[in-house]
Amino acid sequence: MFTLMPIDGGVCAPEGFYADGISAGLKPDNLKDLAFIHSDELCDIRAVFTTNRFQAAPILHFKKESIQQTNFVLINAKNANAMTGTAGIEDIERILDHARVHFKTIVNPVMSSTGVIGVRLPKEKIMRALETFDLSSQNADAAAQAIMTTDSCDKQIAFEVQLESGERFNIGAMAKGAGMINPAMATMLCFITTDAAIPSDEMQAMIQNAAASTFNAISVDGDTSTNDTVMLLSNRKSGIYNREAFAFALEKVMHELALNIVADGEGATKCVAFQITGAANREEATIAAKALTNSLLVKTALYGEDPNWGRIASTIGASGVMCDPDRLTISFGDVTVYQNGTILFDEEREAMAANVMRKKAFAIHCDLGIGNGEFTAYGCDLGHEYVKINADYRT
Amino acid sequence: MFTLMPIDGGVCAPEGFYADGISAGLKPDNLKDLAFIHSDELCDIRAVFTTNRFQAAPILHFKKESIQQTNFVLINAKNANAMTGTAGIEDIERILDHARVHFKTIVNPVMSSTGVIGVRLPKEKIMRALETFDLSSQNADAAAQAIMTTDSCDKQIAFEVQLESGERFNIGAMAKGAGMINPAMATMLCFITTDAAIPSDEMQAMIQNAAASTFNAISVDGDTSTNDTVMLLSNRKSGIYNREAFAFALEKVMHELALNIVADGEGATKCVAFQITGAANREEATIAAKALTNSLLVKTALYGEDPNWGRIASTIGASGVMCDPDRLTISFGDVTVYQNGTILFDEEREAMAANVMRKKAFAIHCDLGIGNGEFTAYGCDLGHEYVKINADYRT
Repeated sequence: MFTLMPIDGGVCAPEGFYADGISAGLKPDNLKDLAFIHSDELCDIRAVFTTNRFQAAPILHFKKESIQQTNFVLINAKNANAMTGTAGIEDIERILDHARVHFKTIVNPVMSSTGVIGVRLPKEKIMRALETFDLSSQNADAAAQAIMTTDSCDKQIAFEVQLESGERFNIGAMAKGAGMINPAMATMLCFITTDAAIPSDEMQAMIQNAAASTFNAISVDGDTSTNDTVMLLSNRKSGIYNREAFAFALEKVMHELALNIVADGEGATKCVAFQITGAANREEATIAAKALTNSLLVKTALYGEDPNWGRIASTIGASGVMCDPDRLTISFGDVTVYQNGTILFDEEREAMAANVMRKKAFAIHCDLGIGNGEFTAYGCDLGHEYVKINADYRT
Repeated sequence: MFTLMPIDGGVCAPEGFYADGISAGLKPDNLKDLAFIHSDELCDIRAVFTTNRFQAAPILHFKKESIQQTNFVLINAKNANAMTGTAGIEDIERILDHARVHFKTIVNPVMSSTGVIGVRLPKEKIMRALETFDLSSQNADAAAQAIMTTDSCDKQIAFEVQLESGERFNIGAMAKGAGMINPAMATMLCFITTDAAIPSDEMQAMIQNAAASTFNAISVDGDTSTNDTVMLLSNRKSGIYNREAFAFALEKVMHELALNIVADGEGATKCVAFQITGAANREEATIAAKALTNSLLVKTALYGEDPNWGRIASTIGASGVMCDPDRLTISFGDVTVYQNGTILFDEEREAMAANVMRKKAFAIHCDLGIGNGEFTAYGCDLGHEYVKINADYRT
């Protein structure tokens, strides 16, 4: 048994963590665009990165240095440092060397970036700006704001986790993800801090497991950025650990932030859970659920609040998973419109299903009737704002 | 050596073929919605169908009857007869039995449908209407119009193929495909007639080969309908055949109609050829090319005439094919913006690339620099009209 209590403080909620965000002049109008996370004790750090084959320079740098421990993460917005080749990695080395010289306490610093692809980092600006950091600041709000691109709000969360024994540890996180807006900057970044005494060798598996059902279950436009990153920093200052409780809290933190990303964005008006059950296995359930989140026909029907179940069926059929029209059942919320080969969709059910779709968040459930595979993916609708913003971006 | 001469007549251009289109009251305003193709000699027929696992009733009926020869194809628009179960197949049997009773000459009739998914066919209307068919009509235009859903124009083509010997045969075709509009009706149907004396056992392979580089190379929204069908009918009346010439003419017919489908649709303002070269193999080239046609980020950039090469690179990287930023080259038309790891994109090239994108049709070329795999896929942009039509459709 354990309890999770929401607390303030974001990435600074766990003991010994510091953060701030400032303007380095990458964004216009003095908006914050450069953030750090610092721990006064050396952290273990583990990360999961984008599966895009063109991983950005910060990811290549992290892997090249085989970083396992750090006490300093530097994050910039507005420039992804992607498709920038060896020069992009050298830029990071220059910047982080400068940070190390300026702040003597920094060990194995790490960088993370989000923004436009294919442009070199303005490293002089970043180096000058980082000199003004106060490593003893606990300004999680400013850090969360600095990593935003076109997010409409910052995304933070923190919990105090209390075990049955009364012992406690904290977990905090911040994320950015532009949802349907500005997908050239649609990188998803998430930084999680904890003072739980999680064993080093459990961190990687835990973050990967949690990512599979959270960040890897959301889709805003089916594209996978060059920069997607989830990092977990653990400084163990609480001395407390319970595996089950930590795994639960980690997944909760990542789930909430993932849903925040889907729900955000001027273009998205709805967050929809596509629940697949009865697939041949979990992999096939995942394929079908993600196909629904990525189907233009489904996304535009969501926007139009049109319970067009034929598009749902057709998308599942096209996804290539094992399925059979006589075993398929489709429901909008509690309203079943097609059941085991029988069309239940009539005027009354159409009205009821359309009512479900008027909500900001709802579930579409498809039981394939084949096996026990289950997966829920989260998606959003596609409206005029998406086209407007994406067609007009850059030029 | 052989020559292709464009001729009029569509599916009626080959000798012995007849066609017409009438209104059965499925579309409003007395618009044509029911078509037939008839041959006065028994044809061999071969078809390729959608890979969607929920194949529509007309496809299931065709397979169930193992149809290899026919002289009558009936096609309706406005109702896909998909997700209608056994009842959907029985409806077809009732309709075709009625046709056979009414027109004594009909052998092994075939049906094909396009329209809304999940609604039973109005079979009484269709049976009453087909009685008014005149099987000696050669009204290919009316047939091509009757199979349209929201196509903005009918799609027909025909060639006279002349061999070096002076011998001739004809090939004709009609297609429908709603492009970016009304994708709940986005079924692609294509009916090809010929009087060439093509051997029965060569037909299936030939139509499949031609489909791979034509209809299977186009994407309007990444969805695969429950009804997609390409049928080849051959009555051999010319007595003439040359394998190379026929294969060329067949691919030409299908290529032109496929491009017509991409270019059509209120939502689409551009038809873009995504040429992948230098992939590890043809399969990987196909994956990368299709990923580009389906990427929302790329499609909206096309609409905005924004030479955002970072989105192209990121989409290729995300597609999972073997690639390396140091070997990749990206060009808009003749304007190379990224070459073997070097960013050539500057203000001048940006302006030149944007100029290329202002055209109605152009190519984006990506050389992966890995192997010899090549594939060209054809796609279109995604604009406001697409959202408007798809969000507002049905309700």
